[in-house]
Amino acid sequence: MPNWLLPENIADVLPSEARKIEELRRRMLDNFRLYGYEMVMPPLLEYLESLLTGAGQDTDLRTFKLVDQLSGRTLGVRADMTTQVARIDAHLLNRDSVTRLCYAGSVLHTRPSGLHATREPLQIGAEIYGHAGLEADAEIQELALASLALAGIAKVRLDLCHVGVLRAIIANDDKANKQAAQLFGLLESKDIPGLQVLTKDYQPVTRDALLALPGLYGDIEVIERARKALPSLPGITQALDELKALAQLAGEANVTIDLADLRGYHYHSGVMFAAYVPGLPNAVVRGGRYDHVGEAFGRARPATGFSMDLRELARLMPGAERKRAIRAPWGTEAGLREKITELRRAGEIVIQSLPGHENDQDEFDCDRAVELSNGNWIIKNLG
Amino acid sequence: MPNWLLPENIADVLPSEARKIEELRRRMLDNFRLYGYEMVMPPLLEYLESLLTGAGQDTDLRTFKLVDQLSGRTLGVRADMTTQVARIDAHLLNRDSVTRLCYAGSVLHTRPSGLHATREPLQIGAEIYGHAGLEADAEIQELALASLALAGIAKVRLDLCHVGVLRAIIANDDKANKQAAQLFGLLESKDIPGLQVLTKDYQPVTRDALLALPGLYGDIEVIERARKALPSLPGITQALDELKALAQLAGEANVTIDLADLRGYHYHSGVMFAAYVPGLPNAVVRGGRYDHVGEAFGRARPATGFSMDLRELARLMPGAERKRAIRAPWGTEAGLREKITELRRAGEIVIQSLPGHENDQDEFDCDRAVELSNGNWIIKNLG
Repeated sequence: MPNWLLPENIADVLPSEARKIEELRRRMLDNFRLYGYEMVMPPLLEYLESLLTGAGQDTDLRTFKLVDQLSGRTLGVRADMTTQVARIDAHLLNRDSVTRLCYAGSVLHTRPSGLHATREPLQIGAEIYGHAGLEADAEIQELALASLALAGIAKVRLDLCHVGVLRAIIANDDKANKQAAQLFGLLESKDIPGLQVLTKDYQPVTRDALLALPGLYGDIEVIERARKALPSLPGITQALDELKALAQLAGEANVTIDLADLRGYHYHSGVMFAAYVPGLPNAVVRGGRYDHVGEAFGRARPATGFSMDLRELARLMPGAERKRAIRAPWGTEAGLREKITELRRAGEIVIQSLPGHENDQDEFDCDRAVELSNGNWIIKNLG
Repeated sequence: MPNWLLPENIADVLPSEARKIEELRRRMLDNFRLYGYEMVMPPLLEYLESLLTGAGQDTDLRTFKLVDQLSGRTLGVRADMTTQVARIDAHLLNRDSVTRLCYAGSVLHTRPSGLHATREPLQIGAEIYGHAGLEADAEIQELALASLALAGIAKVRLDLCHVGVLRAIIANDDKANKQAAQLFGLLESKDIPGLQVLTKDYQPVTRDALLALPGLYGDIEVIERARKALPSLPGITQALDELKALAQLAGEANVTIDLADLRGYHYHSGVMFAAYVPGLPNAVVRGGRYDHVGEAFGRARPATGFSMDLRELARLMPGAERKRAIRAPWGTEAGLREKITELRRAGEIVIQSLPGHENDQDEFDCDRAVELSNGNWIIKNLG
């Protein structure tokens, strides 16, 4: 096998794509900052038990494991950064005030999430810790949508759901409560026959509500349908009110609400959202509230946030234009060097032709050249 | 052991340090671009045999190994990016013209290179492929020094050496040639008694030259001393001419030349340099020519480049000033939202106070606030 071959679902990023990713990364991080988010950089490696703590349990099978030569303990390469950022909030920063954090970095997956998915997403995201109210969820949703707009993506479908609905339905029914995991699975696949069998012996009010959930899917009017179809428990009313408020704040996005969509339910604690864009079958952004995330690190602060894969988003962006540049001859003559320095200070790309390579093809669009004319270094237009 | 504890020589980067690193990363990458370098992003993971190919052999012990669940083969987490970038030049881009590439990314080491060294350097670097002449080395040296200047480092010591001197000395002496690895070791540690024993049976001209090398250390005048002390072989003359030219192009840097310093000799093929700064015992930049680097990938293009650890350099920079920001109340009122959007568009950081957190301490220096005055949202200076 040739030694330049890369593992499956692992790829180099070549210059034109790298520029798009770098540009998008900067735009998003700069925008996070304008909202008051501080950047943190958690490590690629941690002790496995730290990575798989709490909300990280899900990532066990996706996490590459290594032996630490220094401690003999098992390390993991992060498969997700949200648990790491929660650890930083809970343990390192340890503030009482609201803390807004953002991050961008590579994560590795042992297996791709789909046939063509990369095993090395470039995860970027933002989190608010310390505020339990819907205002934090609203800011996170706004920032997620703003991030997609920065990638030039205008047409977004925003799916909203809320674990509070299901939790409230089953809270007063012991049987249902014990079978929560099964219920979540059946609801997610909208398996109504399966639900009918499983809920046979539940209290009628629980059963009816559970069987209604898979049909509570559609645009914002689903909320009013749900108010009629579901029992008026405080938890349900609050969840529906929250969904309504967020749907109204979604701006241009096309909102759909799905009360049976519960992916990630076991670490989420409130509203959850996912954004879809034309041309990609999977969600490009996922986010929501997960107030228990810091608990495993000794500090359960309210938390809400989102993350996405920069590489995937960059692929949706139009190709960057070839950048105009200036060609200059090689030389150590002071006048030439000054001219080149001055041009670069003004933001111009100046490429010095190495001797013998004056006629090389170049990846930059050199439309001007530095030339000596009557003892002065001047710029001449080419072509 | 608490689950928030990180492995030894692995650390989180908290906001103030992260900002410095991000700022320096951008400055350096932008400057690379002004010189015509294109960015590439090689993957964190490769088949081990690709990573350890050619110049990568050195990194075997430092490379974390993993089993690929998709292929059953052994993967490595990159411990260095230069071999990866050479692979991209040799195989993927496959251009005949001069190619300038740059990169920035995390690498992992199984063991730290020193007691306090990180096992997760953030490697940044630049390479020129396709030009064998000294002009490429000169550009790389200039760019390395310019990168240090961007980190605010004014006082730099630049160590220059050249594998060509030693290679020329031993080229015509079979015994010496066979013992090259031992010779390199003794020279690097300036072990003169050891050298005397090993070179006992060498040709006198070889022996004398080898014993002279450890003394050929100092400022630029070393070059003229070397011309007298060493045999006038073409390889030696060329190497000394190259060192002289580079020393003269080093600008403000304090140049020292050490003809016996041969770290990395077995993959370098010409001039080598290292830059030192006050306060750090180890070189902050290492670079040089290694023309054989692409050979293992089927294409031995001339190559010269440098790399450094962004985290280490950022630590030398003064702390970033606390950024001024504007506090705004929470609210969905159109006028307030417009005002906030307008301020952010103008580059202002605007932090919306979440309800109940109006008096939180904040990491930003909020010297202004958005307030409602007679029905208009205005900016008020805070005392």
